[in-house]
Parts: sequence; structure tokens; C-alpha cells
Amino acid sequence: MSLLSLPDIMIEPAVRAALLEDLGRAGDITSDAVIPPETQARVALVARERGVVAGLDFARIAFALVDPAIRFTPRLDDGARLQPSDIIAEIEGPARGILTAERVALNFLGHLSGIASATRGIADAIAQTRAKISCTRKTTPGLRFAEKYAVRAGGGANHRFGLDDAILIKDNHIAIAGGVGVAMARARAAAGHLVKIEIEVDTLEQLDEALPHGPDAILLDNMPPDTLREAVRRIDGRAIAEASGRINAETAPAIAESGVDLLSAGWLTHSARVLDIGLDF
Amino acid sequence: MSLLSLPDIMIEPAVRAALLEDLGRAGDITSDAVIPPETQARVALVARERGVVAGLDFARIAFALVDPAIRFTPRLDDGARLQPSDIIAEIEGPARGILTAERVALNFLGHLSGIASATRGIADAIAQTRAKISCTRKTTPGLRFAEKYAVRAGGGANHRFGLDDAILIKDNHIAIAGGVGVAMARARAAAGHLVKIEIEVDTLEQLDEALPHGPDAILLDNMPPDTLREAVRRIDGRAIAEASGRINAETAPAIAESGVDLLSAGWLTHSARVLDIGLDF
Amino acid sequence: MSLLSLPDIMIEPAVRAALLEDLGRAGDITSDAVIPPETQARVALVARERGVVAGLDFARIAFALVDPAIRFTPRLDDGARLQPSDIIAEIEGPARGILTAERVALNFLGHLSGIASATRGIADAIAQTRAKISCTRKTTPGLRFAEKYAVRAGGGANHRFGLDDAILIKDNHIAIAGGVGVAMARARAAAGHLVKIEIEVDTLEQLDEALPHGPDAILLDNMPPDTLREAVRRIDGRAIAEASGRINAETAPAIAESGVDLLSAGWLTHSARVLDIGLDF
Amino acid sequence: MSLLSLPDIMIEPAVRAALLEDLGRAGDITSDAVIPPETQARVALVARERGVVAGLDFARIAFALVDPAIRFTPRLDDGARLQPSDIIAEIEGPARGILTAERVALNFLGHLSGIASATRGIADAIAQTRAKISCTRKTTPGLRFAEKYAVRAGGGANHRFGLDDAILIKDNHIAIAGGVGVAMARARAAAGHLVKIEIEVDTLEQLDEALPHGPDAILLDNMPPDTLREAVRRIDGRAIAEASGRINAETAPAIAESGVDLLSAGWLTHSARVLDIGLDF
Amino acid sequence: MSLLSLPDIMIEPAVRAALLEDLGRAGDITSDAVIPPETQARVALVARERGVVAGLDFARIAFALVDPAIRFTPRLDDGARLQPSDIIAEIEGPARGILTAERVALNFLGHLSGIASATRGIADAIAQTRAKISCTRKTTPGLRFAEKYAVRAGGGANHRFGLDDAILIKDNHIAIAGGVGVAMARARAAAGHLVKIEIEVDTLEQLDEALPHGPDAILLDNMPPDTLREAVRRIDGRAIAEASGRINAETAPAIAESGVDLLSAGWLTHSARVLDIGLDF
Amino acid sequence: MSLLSLPDIMIEPAVRAALLEDLGRAGDITSDAVIPPETQARVALVARERGVVAGLDFARIAFALVDPAIRFTPRLDDGARLQPSDIIAEIEGPARGILTAERVALNFLGHLSGIASATRGIADAIAQTRAKISCTRKTTPGLRFAEKYAVRAGGGANHRFGLDDAILIKDNHIAIAGGVGVAMARARAAAGHLVKIEIEVDTLEQLDEALPHGPDAILLDNMPPDTLREAVRRIDGRAIAEASGRINAETAPAIAESGVDLLSAGWLTHSARVLDIGLDF
Repeated sequence: MSLLSLPDIMIEPAVRAALLEDLGRAGDITSDAVIPPETQARVALVARERGVVAGLDFARIAFALVDPAIRFTPRLDDGARLQPSDIIAEIEGPARGILTAERVALNFLGHLSGIASATRGIADAIAQTRAKISCTRKTTPGLRFAEKYAVRAGGGANHRFGLDDAILIKDNHIAIAGGVGVAMARARAAAGHLVKIEIEVDTLEQLDEALPHGPDAILLDNMPPDTLREAVRRIDGRAIAEASGRINAETAPAIAESGVDLLSAGWLTHSARVLDIGLDF
Repeated sequence: MSLLSLPDIMIEPAVRAALLEDLGRAGDITSDAVIPPETQARVALVARERGVVAGLDFARIAFALVDPAIRFTPRLDDGARLQPSDIIAEIEGPARGILTAERVALNFLGHLSGIASATRGIADAIAQTRAKISCTRKTTPGLRFAEKYAVRAGGGANHRFGLDDAILIKDNHIAIAGGVGVAMARARAAAGHLVKIEIEVDTLEQLDEALPHGPDAILLDNMPPDTLREAVRRIDGRAIAEASGRINAETAPAIAESGVDLLSAGWLTHSARVLDIGLDF
Repeated sequence: MSLLSLPDIMIEPAVRAALLEDLGRAGDITSDAVIPPETQARVALVARERGVVAGLDFARIAFALVDPAIRFTPRLDDGARLQPSDIIAEIEGPARGILTAERVALNFLGHLSGIASATRGIADAIAQTRAKISCTRKTTPGLRFAEKYAVRAGGGANHRFGLDDAILIKDNHIAIAGGVGVAMARARAAAGHLVKIEIEVDTLEQLDEALPHGPDAILLDNMPPDTLREAVRRIDGRAIAEASGRINAETAPAIAESGVDLLSAGWLTHSARVLDIGLDF
Repeated sequence: MSLLSLPDIMIEPAVRAALLEDLGRAGDITSDAVIPPETQARVALVARERGVVAGLDFARIAFALVDPAIRFTPRLDDGARLQPSDIIAEIEGPARGILTAERVALNFLGHLSGIASATRGIADAIAQTRAKISCTRKTTPGLRFAEKYAVRAGGGANHRFGLDDAILIKDNHIAIAGGVGVAMARARAAAGHLVKIEIEVDTLEQLDEALPHGPDAILLDNMPPDTLREAVRRIDGRAIAEASGRINAETAPAIAESGVDLLSAGWLTHSARVLDIGLDF
Repeated sequence: MSLLSLPDIMIEPAVRAALLEDLGRAGDITSDAVIPPETQARVALVARERGVVAGLDFARIAFALVDPAIRFTPRLDDGARLQPSDIIAEIEGPARGILTAERVALNFLGHLSGIASATRGIADAIAQTRAKISCTRKTTPGLRFAEKYAVRAGGGANHRFGLDDAILIKDNHIAIAGGVGVAMARARAAAGHLVKIEIEVDTLEQLDEALPHGPDAILLDNMPPDTLREAVRRIDGRAIAEASGRINAETAPAIAESGVDLLSAGWLTHSARVLDIGLDF
Repeated sequence: MSLLSLPDIMIEPAVRAALLEDLGRAGDITSDAVIPPETQARVALVARERGVVAGLDFARIAFALVDPAIRFTPRLDDGARLQPSDIIAEIEGPARGILTAERVALNFLGHLSGIASATRGIADAIAQTRAKISCTRKTTPGLRFAEKYAVRAGGGANHRFGLDDAILIKDNHIAIAGGVGVAMARARAAAGHLVKIEIEVDTLEQLDEALPHGPDAILLDNMPPDTLREAVRRIDGRAIAEASGRINAETAPAIAESGVDLLSAGWLTHSARVLDIGLDF
């Protein structure tokens, strides 16, 4: 579980920005009007459905930034499986501050737990195979580091964090460069010694063209399981085999049983449903 | 359509941050390696499914920030309905820059169009009623202004933009304050002349308690259509009637036919599926 | 007094920026040169004239950001009335840090107390009427949230916090739109359910034209008390009546006695004299 | 007039921040609702009272940031004297953008012109003497560079821009250090070759104590004209003589005629009344 | 040369910050005082010694940000070799702006060209071998992306851009983890499919322990050429062999002839002497 | 030693930015993979060569920002002379955090200590003369405040912090203005009372032309010691005499013995070699 950690210094700017976005120019005018400043409260973050929790540090920092007098006690770690009514964390302190931070804390926690839960769903479905589930660069603008973290919390693997993270030659690159071979040759010449090269292929013919250039990974896009199995056979361990396209809990097992190393799915980060978590008094 | 506009000065910081997040510390090493700098390309943003487009300015600014030599020509306006294969915009210029900006442009466009499309789905379903569909503060951290805009593009209404935007007394406020009456009285005393007051009620009894305090709007939470109809009858035009809870394309018509003015749904902004839009060469 | 609070997270960025503006690239070279680092001091913030204090949290945060070892003990709350020689707060700790933070703390405290004092002056003058005094969007760039807060501390009400806060149709909008009626109709069609609509009118004729469109508030600009009284009669409780133009402590009572709900004055935030507060050893 | 210039790169961040503060999260909802996007307008910035203009570049940048299609044509330069009805600049372009930027442009222009006008008032009053009028560090947080510029536009001189700009030993420094002599000696030992040293004295005795240490300037605080004249005699050209305390258009001539080189007044930047400038269609 | 490009959007924030750091709160008071605003100038960036140029885009952007009327015409590309008196770029336009931007432009250009020149010195010295020269994470805080770019411009390779860029197990990690084997095993379990693993070894025994775990690269620290040769023999192409420690133009050839793939040197980025480039009128 | 202090508020932004630059989007993946979260460590910052330490607060803040549980105990003060093996500070706490912050802490500490050490080398070489060694504006972009501080820690003096800090008329200004006399006259007319004026002269003729205008300092550029001596004779105490050009530990004594007040050298900040400091377990 060691890859889960994000230092607070990476989390705080995003939480601070979200709080200021919500506080606007006048602050929480409802709590200020309705709740006396001295009122204390004791509440709990409670799961309302099954899933996997992620983002506890984001929630903790949200409450701390609004009022350092709020005590936040997690009852679980990120990555833990949730059942309805499970208590995720207990929160105690000035009621105004708790109400002010509530929505931002839940927005992070629900969003990241939703991603972790979706990832865990696929990871469980392919647990009997050698394959892992991975995300993509199809993330919500500004939250990539957090969403990638949530994928890890759900038992998934991370793909590239950005354009500078590895060379990934996609269909458009191949089309413009003029073919798999020329693109691979240029990439090989340019890549640093710590930079891996992956290439996307749509057909077995493209695969055959790519393999002699020694890519570190091959993205097999939108191939049916039988074609994937043949691709894995041809790759024969010389590169990571990654399958993408139409990955969901139903299709994943058959795809994973083709022998690929990795399934990747953009929807984990861009379209996962928020996990329903509430703040109960 | 006049409420659709966002000046570029509001959009640019989010797009700039997303590009820098993606470019990292070395830039687009794939395009730099594989595509000669002088190569030109002509591509199109194309819808791959039905929906509503939103976020064209975000896409335009993404390409312009990467390379001002890229020409971006929209073929539709935000809010337009899409059919598969519809051309949304044409883009022409240096191929490297187009490929570098592609993912950020699509991440914004897909996310915002997804929200607009989900909103339009509800808006169409209740078009025969007097009700409008509205979003909430359950938005993605950092993107509230953009997601609220996408709701408008989909024919929806906006709820509060932040904690400072109106007084909305929710169940937790009532519980801590000690009842509907005391909460309403405090809110009324504190509210400025341009600040509206809304209160959430779960029962008709709470509604009866709230009405004499003259709220501008009442949030009727999780009530079945029959109870909503009775609530509307008791409100009798003295306040905006808003229904929330379990709103989707199937449930919305019956809820809307109860006579409420507004349906609100958090999932429009936090859980709408990305709309599938591609960049075709 | 509950609307007074601003969470520290909203205040800190402005204070931090002001300190860095003052420290420049070499820091406080006078105190560094002249005061030994171990010297301790005990000082007090003292009123030098009558008024109302506002901005104590800004001062507290200024000292804390320069040196967390400085202890800041407020003796009053924001909104309290001051007499010359009143002690506002006591400050104890390293002398260098106290001297370094002094000017920034006083710049905030004097500016915000000046606004609160000016507001209180009008509020007292119209205390026997039903009217309240309000500020406008004529604020110092970058300090709107703070100046609006100071108005509240002085017993005033806040008007719009920004262009997005309510619809306020002013003379230029009416002129360009082509008249009161068309402007009101367009605004009504566009406004969300939590957005109030106010319209500025210069004559009773414009007022008569506006009223049938049901504005939430009407800004009666530069009308003499008699005309205001007639305007209030015609509005007859159907909208908030706001008077603006030439509001000061002398004119305010007669204007307020016309029966309007609100007086608004831009000078409260843009031209109030700083309140003289000193740091005494 | 050469010290007037500020490069746009210094101005733009302040204007951008002010616009975003005003646009909030939804933008200019009034203009969007009421003004069709294609409407063009031609307006003028017009003086409504006598004074001196300052801040034209701030206004120009405000309009340009909202909509680059707006053409801004200044008819005067910063520092020019204004009579009521003088046209300061003409503005032409999309009406929406003009209305959106109007308030921010006027907030800067009125604030800075107010400072320039107040400065000019003193400068004119002492024009027959050798003295100049100067500002202090008592500025509005975040706007020091702009307010100092406005003082220059009004014919004034600038004092320190920050704590790091020169050594200025004030009464509190002297008290804590243990006297004029020890403070001066320490300052002399620490000061770099381009750093000037100024010391505040309240009495002629302190002046006599300070002079042998060779300060570059001496701040003569709250001395009546006769005492000032004696102080100037004793200084005898060995240091800049600066008078502070109760400087206004009435008192300035007598103070200046004492022979001091400089009068300084904090109210120029912290309490000058905004100059009334309007946007006329 | 394709890996050289950095989009302007990555460069501009650093240049803007450097200009504001230099302009301070009053701008360029020398040029404003001494140079009339209408004066035009034509100057050239000229090499004063041999080396390699890098950072032309930084210089171009510095002049453009100060005054868009300045025309900047590069006569060379980054990576070009310089002889004394070579003209690097010609600059024409308002003299004030040219003088204002001069120092920031030269600070970037001299610093980055210094790094490129140092790198080229090593690259030339080992040109007859298969080895490349690489930088490290020992960079100037805030300028890593720029310094890494300068290394590429000098013909060098880039090592990790940050802690998140690859797994590099160093001596301290091994010591704390408890040995080469356990560290490698943990790294292998945690690494994503696009993440390479490198391990630092000080002895051939550590090398033998590391190799069976299949590292992608091995950092051979401070080994003499003979030991390096033996290490290369044992690695036998199964991993990238990188030599570090005491790399300079004199030692590099012997080290490179050991057969390693890579030499890495921290001083390229943290201690390279600035290249002397002047601005000649 | 009183001019050494920089408040943490000035240091923290630079350290925070450097940490985020290094942590990237995934954090310290090596330490996360290899070091268990509960592992504690005790390490020391140790000098590996002779020199002067500077930047201890930067190192302290780096560790504190990564993990507040890390205890940092300095054993020396900035400005202290170092011998190889001297312990600079002891650090104790969670091993992961220590390893994560190590490189950023060392990058600041080595860079600033390198500058302090180079400065001290010259300061020692001229200790028997009246001259001081000073830096210039040739600093690393973004780090000027820190590098100037390091020069002070090494016993040096600071020159201008920015373009706005003093008037320094250089050769290019003279050339464009049309001569020493006109440039000096314009500067004198424009300078505020706390602004010093320095002018660069290349010949004794220029010196003679400058002196009657009363500059506060004169920069004698690239003059041999004999010419410097004659220049000092002609200046005769009426201005600070500063020598620049080819200043190093060998040339400095002869130059300083000419009687100048100041030697200035750009390489102290732009080309000083990093001081070798290690983190030993």
C-alpha cells in the first residue's frame, strides 16, 4: 500500500482553492446567520453505499483550513472497502466551521472515492488474471494528481501523468509521421534512458511492424479478445501488452484472460459516478 | 441564449493550468520526437454520440495558448444539439501544437458537453411542465464556474455559486439551530436586501412552520410526487418550490408535474458521463 | 453580530501579499540594523480618535505571519465603538517582528476602521428610520471582500459583491437596451431563481414603467426627498426602495425619512478617511 | 515627466485580479441578460470635477482584458489637469464588454486620480518654495506601486517603497534601541553603499544628537514652522530636511516656507477622496 | 534536434516572474530618468567567448513582455556553437524597453548557455564512445525545466525531472531499507508499467546483488575506469550502465571508454559558469 | 550580523515552489516504494569541503513543509565558516519525509553556501583594505533575494536589488542619452530624496565629467589598479568609489589597495560553484 501517500504540501493548494471558490467574497452567510459561533458539533462521515474510500487527507485538510479547532479522526485508511453505514471519519468541533467545510470535503471525498470504487470494481473482476487496470490522461483538468492517486487507492495502476512522462505514439502521431516504423525510429532516437516508449496499434499488421523497434509497451486498441490473444502471443513477453477500448466490469474478464498485462480505461477518471458519502450529525 | 457567455479572462486561467499540468517539466516529448516542427495538419472535432456541446471557448483557448498559429473555427455554438459525426469545429495549423493541446481541449470539451447533455436530457423530459432543471454546489473542485456554465448550455438553471450567494438553510442547519422557526428568523434578520433565503424541508409539517417566515424558496427534499403536489398547494405561489432527490430522466416528468418550479440534481455536475468527442485527421 | 465573521483562510492571502509588498527583496532593513534580535516589546494598538474598529483579524494575522512568537490579544471586537485612547489590542513578543508587521497591520486596521466608522456615522443618523445604509461596488481593487466586511462592522448592509451577484440594470443598460421595459423583460427571462433583479430609475415615469415587471428592488437615483416619498408611495411595498446620490450624515436623515428601505453610498468604501490608530510602546 | 511610466507588465496583474474579483463565478449577468452580444457602443470617460488624471493605463488594460475588440483612445496623459466635462478617453466597441469593464476601470481611475489631485493641490500650494510634497508607506494594501505612481503623476515625490528601500529610524526604533545615537550608529554600520539613512526626530535636542552621525535625511515630526526653521538652520544643508504631521493645503505653505526640502503626508494615499469620473454614452 | 522545443506557455511564467523581481515597485527608474520615451535603438546579443547558445526563447519573451514593440530576430538556434563576436540575435525598438529587459534576458541566456556549453564540452570529449552525458536533479530551485532543456541544447541527455519521474534507489534508500535486494524487490512490486527502475551501487558486490532483480538502469557511483569496465561486463547489456562521480572534461573520456552508456554530472546544472554574452549598441 | 535575517514569510514561497517542482504529480515514488512509512531516521547535514554556510532557514523550511514531524536542529548559524566534516545541522524524524526533502534542502543550501563561500574568499583577501566586496543584479532568475542574502552571509555588501532600487547609469544609458553630463543632469532632476545615483565610467575623462554633478557613487569599470588609484584621488571622498571587472581572489587585493570603497563582481551570484554539503545517515 506504500504508493498511496501524497504529502500534504501537494494536497493543500487544491483544497485551499476549492474552499475559496466556495466561500466567494462573503463567506458562509447561512452558517453565520443561523449558527451561533460557540456551538459545538460532533459528526461523522458515513458511507451510504458500497465502495472504496479515497481522499481522506483532502477532507481532513478542508476542515483544518476552515478552522484548526476542528478535530478530524479517520476511522479507515484510503483504499478500504466500504459498506453502507460504515463510519469513515469522526469530526468534532465548532459547528460553523464544520458546516462551512462540509461541501468541499465531500466534493473531494465523493469524487475520489467514486474513482477508487470504479477502479476496484474492475480490479476485482480481473483478479484471477495477470492483468492490472490502469487509468489514462483523460482526467478532470487540475485534478490529475488526485485522480491518479484515487486509481491507486482502488487497486489500479497509473499510466502517464503527463505529456512529458513517457513517449506514447498514438494513431494520430503515426498518421502524421507516416507510419509505425518511422515513428518508432524517431522515438527511439530521441528517448532518454529513463523514458519508456509505448505505441498504439490497431491491427496485428501494425503490431508486427512495431515489434522489431523494441517498444517497452504496446497499446492494443479496440481489439476483440481473440485478436488480443494472438497479439500477446506475437509480443511474447518482449513488451508490456496493454488493451484499451470498451473496458467495463462485464467485458474486463474476457479481455484480461487474453493474457495482456494491462487494461486501461479513461472513464475511471472522467466518468466515474461520485460515491455517496454523507455527513451525519 | 444570452446567459451563456463567459469572458475569456475567466476561462484562460483554468485552461492554462490544465496545459501546464499536462506539459509537466519536459513538454510533449512524443510529438517533439515524432512530428517534424514544420508539419501542418487539418483536423476536426467530431461528435461520436448524441448530446449537447459546451466548452468550445475552452477548446479554442487551449489550442491558442499552445500555439497562436493554430486556427480554430467553430462550426456550432455552445448549447447546440449534436448527432454522431457532427463536426463541432475545424482546426488547422502546426501539427505538433495541435497534438500537444488535443487532450486538454478534449478533457474540457468532453466534460462540459457531458454536463450539458445530461442537463438537456432532463430539460427535454420536463419541457411540457413549468419546471426547470437546476444544478447544485456538488461540483468538481476548481471547475464550478465552468460546470455551472455547462448546465446553462444544456438548458438548465443555476443554483447557488457558493456559500456566499444566497442563504440556504439545510437539514443540518435546522438541527443545530434548533428548528425551522428559529433558523428562519435568524436568517431573515441577517440577510441583505439582494440575498434570497431558501430553506430545506423534509415534511409538510416543516413546510408549514417555514412558510410564515416568508422564505424566497423552499427546497422540498425527497418527497414523492403526491406530497410535492400538496406542498405546492400549500406554498401557493408565495415562494419558489424546488424538488430534490432521485431526479433522473425517468422520474423527472412525474416530479415536475407536481407543479414545482425547479428540480435540482447534484449528479448533473459531479457524475455526468463525459460526452464522446474525437479529434479526427 | 453573526454576519461579521470572515474565516482566516479568506483573510490570509491579502495580508500575506501586503507583507511581501512591504518586505520587498531585502526585508525590514531598519529593524534588522537597529533592534537586536532578542529584544522583546509590549505594545498596544490605541485609538487616536472616535470611531468604530474593524479589521482586528487582519492585524492579528499580520503579526502572526511575521513571527508566530508574537502574542496578539484583542481587547475589543470588530464593530465596537472607540473613544480616543481606547486600547484595541495588546501585542507582546519579539520587538523586531512587531515593528516589521506594524505598518501592514495598521494599514488594514486604519482603512477598514475608517470604512466602519463612516458607515456607523450614517447608520446612527438614520437610526430612527426604517432605512439601512449600504455600500456599492465602488471599492478598492482587490479589497472588496474586506471593505464589504467593514461596512457590516459599521452597522451597514452590503449591496452586490460583484457583477455576478444579482441583476442591477443601470442607466447605461437601459439606454443601450432601449428602455426600462425591454431591459426588465430580458432580465426577468434570464434570471435564476436565487437571483434578485434591481433596476435604477431617475424619474417617476421610469418607476411606473418598471413596477409592472416586478423588480425585487428599485434604485431611486438622485431624487430629492419629496420625490422619494412619492416613489415609495407608488412602490407600496412591492419592491425594496433604495435611494442613492449625495448621501452623507447631513442629508441622510431627510432621505431616510422618505420611507425608503435603503440608502447606498459609494464613498463609504472608496473615500472614507482612514481612522487614526497608533501603536504605542 | 519621465518618471511616470509603468510598464504594462506591472499593471496587468492588479487589473486582472480586480476584474476576476468583480466577475465572480458567473460573470456580468446583467449585461449578458440585457444587452445583445452584437450591440456596439461609443462612450467617453469624462471628468465631473476639477483635478488631475492618473491611471489611464489601468483603465485601458481593463477594457482590453475584457474584450480585445474594444478600442481605447486616450485624449490626455496622466498628470494632466482636468476641468469638469473634460474628455479623458474615448472608448468604442462591443457594448457588453464596455459595461463589464466599466466599474473596474473607474475604480482604478477614480482612486488614482484622487491621489494625484490631492498631491497636486499641495504641490501647487508650495510651488513658490523649494519644498516638494511626498507620500509615505501608509498605502492601500496591494496597491502601493500604483498609489506611488499616482503621487508622481500629481507632481509629488515618492518616499520609501517598502521596508527594504532605505533605513528610516522612527520613534519606536529609537525608543527600543535606547536613543538616537545608538540607533544611528547601528544603522551606519549596517547600511549598504546605495542605502540612504533617515531618522525621525521630535525635538531639536534629538536633531543635535543625530546630526553628527551624518544621516542622509531627517524627518522632523510635528514641529511648528518656527521650530522647523531653526531645525533647517542647524541642518545647514548636511541632510535632506523633511517635515511631517498635519500637512494640508492650508498648512503646507507656512511649513514649506520654513526651508525644508520635503513635506510628507500619509493621507495622500490612504485618505484622498476619489475623483469623480464618469462613463458617458 | 526535435527534443529541444519548449512551448512559450512553459517559459513565460519564469520570465514574467524574473521581470517583476527586477522591476520591483517603481520600475526601471534609471531608464525612465535618462532615456526619452521616443528614443529607438538597434542592438545585438553578441557572444564574448566560445560556447553553445541556449535560451533564445527566454530572451525573446523577456523583451516582448516589457514592450511588444521590440522586434527580436534570432540569428542562430539554440544548440548552435558560438565563437567570440558571433551575433546571436538582433533587437530593435524603443530604447527604454530594451534597456529595461536587458538584464533579465541576459541572466537567462547566460545561465542556460553556460549549462549548454559545459554539457557540450563533455559531449565532445566522449564523442568517440557510445556514452552520453546526462544531468541530475541537482538544479537551481525553480528552474529545473529550463536547465534540463539547456542540457539537451548542449547535446546532453536528461535524467529524472523529479521525484515522481522514475524510481532511483540511492545509497540512503538502500541503507534504510536494509539492503539492495529488499529495496529492489519493493520497487519492482510498486512500479507502474511505464516507470523505470534504477539503483545506485558502490561496489561490484552490490551490482551482483542488484542484477537478478532486473533493474532498467544501474548507477555506478564513484568507480574507477577499471571497475566500471568490469561492471559493464557483468551487466552485459541487461541494463543501462550509468557512471557518476568526478566527471569533467579531463576524466570523462577514460570513464566513457569503460563502455558505460551514460555519464551523469550534477555540476552541469548547479555549478556551470555563466557564458559571457553582451548586449552591444 | 543583524542584516542577515530574512523572515520565514519571504523564504517559504521559494521552498514550497521547489518542493512542488520536485514532487511533480506523483510524489516521491522511490521513498514510497522502498521505505516503510513508520521508519524513523537520524541524519546530519555535513560539510564536505571548506567554506561558509548560508541557507539554513531554507533547509529547515524544506523539511518542515514535507513533514512537520521532522525535527531540524541547526548546529551553526548562517555565515559560519566550515571545515570538512563539520556538522551543520541534525535532522530526526520520519525517514520518508527526510529523503523526500533532502534534494531540495541541499539544492538551496549548496547554492547559497557556494555564494557565501565565494564572497568570503574575496572578503578575506581584501580584509586589510577599506574595501568591501559586493554583488550585482546578475543573479539567478527568481532567487535574487536569496542570493543577495547569501552574499551578506559571506561578509559581502549588496548592490541594487532591482531596477527600482537606485539609479545606476551604465555605458549603454550614457551612449543613448548622449553623454555623461546629460545623463547625470536628467538623473539628478528625476531622483527622489532617498534614491542614490551611481554612474559607470570607463575613463578618467568621463570621471571628470561626472563628478561636478555630484553622484553618490561612481562605478569604475575595468580600470587597472593605477588608474583606479588616480580615480580615487580625483573623487577625493565626494562619492563612493566602486571598482568592477575581473575581480577574483588573486586580483582583488591589488584592486582594493587602490583605495576604492567597493569591489563588485557578478560571478559571486551567477557562477559560484555549489558548496559540497551532504546528508549523512
